[in-house]
Amino acid sequence: MDRDEPAGDSGEDRLIARFFRPLVTAPGALGLMDDAATLTPPPDHDLVLTVDALVAGVHFFPHDPPDLIARKALRVNLSDLAAKGAAPAGCLLALALPSDTPEAWLEAFSRGLRADVEEFACPLFGGDTVSTPGPLTISVTAFGTLPRGTAVRRRGARPGDRIVVTGTIGDAALGLALRRGDEAAARWSLNEEQRSLLIGRYLMPRPRLAVAEALRISATAAMDISDGLIGDLAKLCRASGVAATVQAAAVPLSDGARRACDADPAVRTTLLGGGDDYEILATVPPAALSQLQRRGAELGIPFTDIGVIEAGDGPVSVLDRNGKALDLARASFSHF
Amino acid sequence: MDRDEPAGDSGEDRLIARFFRPLVTAPGALGLMDDAATLTPPPDHDLVLTVDALVAGVHFFPHDPPDLIARKALRVNLSDLAAKGAAPAGCLLALALPSDTPEAWLEAFSRGLRADVEEFACPLFGGDTVSTPGPLTISVTAFGTLPRGTAVRRRGARPGDRIVVTGTIGDAALGLALRRGDEAAARWSLNEEQRSLLIGRYLMPRPRLAVAEALRISATAAMDISDGLIGDLAKLCRASGVAATVQAAAVPLSDGARRACDADPAVRTTLLGGGDDYEILATVPPAALSQLQRRGAELGIPFTDIGVIEAGDGPVSVLDRNGKALDLARASFSHF
Repeated sequence: MDRDEPAGDSGEDRLIARFFRPLVTAPGALGLMDDAATLTPPPDHDLVLTVDALVAGVHFFPHDPPDLIARKALRVNLSDLAAKGAAPAGCLLALALPSDTPEAWLEAFSRGLRADVEEFACPLFGGDTVSTPGPLTISVTAFGTLPRGTAVRRRGARPGDRIVVTGTIGDAALGLALRRGDEAAARWSLNEEQRSLLIGRYLMPRPRLAVAEALRISATAAMDISDGLIGDLAKLCRASGVAATVQAAAVPLSDGARRACDADPAVRTTLLGGGDDYEILATVPPAALSQLQRRGAELGIPFTDIGVIEAGDGPVSVLDRNGKALDLARASFSHF
Repeated sequence: MDRDEPAGDSGEDRLIARFFRPLVTAPGALGLMDDAATLTPPPDHDLVLTVDALVAGVHFFPHDPPDLIARKALRVNLSDLAAKGAAPAGCLLALALPSDTPEAWLEAFSRGLRADVEEFACPLFGGDTVSTPGPLTISVTAFGTLPRGTAVRRRGARPGDRIVVTGTIGDAALGLALRRGDEAAARWSLNEEQRSLLIGRYLMPRPRLAVAEALRISATAAMDISDGLIGDLAKLCRASGVAATVQAAAVPLSDGARRACDADPAVRTTLLGGGDDYEILATVPPAALSQLQRRGAELGIPFTDIGVIEAGDGPVSVLDRNGKALDLARASFSHF
């Protein structure tokens, strides 16, 4: 309740000046020296708004590299913007810091944030830094813009639409298992490159902003995959009032994921049910599929056709090569 | 690191549906069933963006009534919008909840938030709810709108401008001392009405949104008082590159604050240096003062002239009735 704690209001101005003012490039941010920032939206555009909170020990390991924590905190929000078809316009940062947070941690955190703010043209507009007796907690609000009325929603999927995903699925869930040192992971017999690729997918999502425009043009519905392919597809189906069938064999896997799956068939459940991929899940009318895939290929972000939207109310069936329904759908469902 | 904790992703959908979906009235919020919300800004308007984080045990007492915690979390942001001259357009909520948070707490919290979302026409656009092993942490992002280029900043104060404040100053700092049961507060010999008014000022700030337009018309600079009058005036002076002189006797006090001050002269330092008033501090050219005061009177929000902006670089002098500089300015400065 003391407003003069070291990392509280007393230290806040110094801390902001030292670590966060260098990240501010938007004139409306007023150099972080005001109560609020201003943004002039482009004419005839909508704003897209999203917020994500990350807690040390829950959403990241406390000893993860601070620059990667900052980048992931921003990227999970940018991924939401991408899925809606928006271009980033800026972000706000709320940071609750334990009083023993080393300056070196903040230096590395702000360095990571700066790298991504620049890479994704998403300037810091403002923030709030407070002290906490608990775990370090990060909340990032990101806002993007898109032409008025063109946001891609979860609820537009129609029977007959093809279901597509970008990139490869399940890598981050395997990366998390590897980082945790899960016993099972030892049996996957991955080489060092495969291991580090999977761990990297967990630590550093790649927001698929490059395909935002293509989604606006072609997709009837979209979301990013943050809680696992099957669970997130179920959410999309619920929002759209439809059902879905996924061909398990069509789901795109990285080399490492495929190898892990060959070594341990139980990995399939992790791949299809695990979270944190931050790939795009979208539905697209069959007539628009090849255009979307062509555009994705041009951008180096493949869209893979994994199944079809059907009439019905919500259930997602996952079929094996023989058309037999897999149990994992049910197993995965129980998580959501 | 587990994404399936009770208050985490597994419970999040249920929790949102039960407690927060009823707060959603903006169509762009998509019933909170999407990754992000959309907002269509009015033509030729700027957006004003602000975020504040509140931590249990740091910014509020864990056993404060949850509805008041929610309202304060929103109101401190609305106060920032008011000080910039903006009208509320909406908010986003990030909530980190301990796993033992009772449903009754959430019910009361969402009820309080709903009351204020309705009172201030600031609909909930979206949010994120996560679990934390630490204290309950709330981060509210609020966004408002105002005609393009009219935001009132901290940095516009000019020598000769009068310094004005809304309402009365220092009540919340006294209310906090009363709530804490500080020994000194026992000596203030306040009656029950005065005590409860002061405590109420601490628990429930009143965002001065009604004067936003008047500020846009008349003020050269403005901010809300969240860290104490003198410290915040010093920040405004630094941002504007000016100095200031305040007449201590002119600072408007409530009956309770005046009585406490009479009983214990040391209270003056608390009144002028303490935080959490969420009144507006503004500067206004002498020629515009009476118009602003007239408009404030019409709205039931008095603007009191407490001093003058001077050439110089930052120092704030506080003078007593005899024109003698008070030490409290220096004492207060050391906090900032």
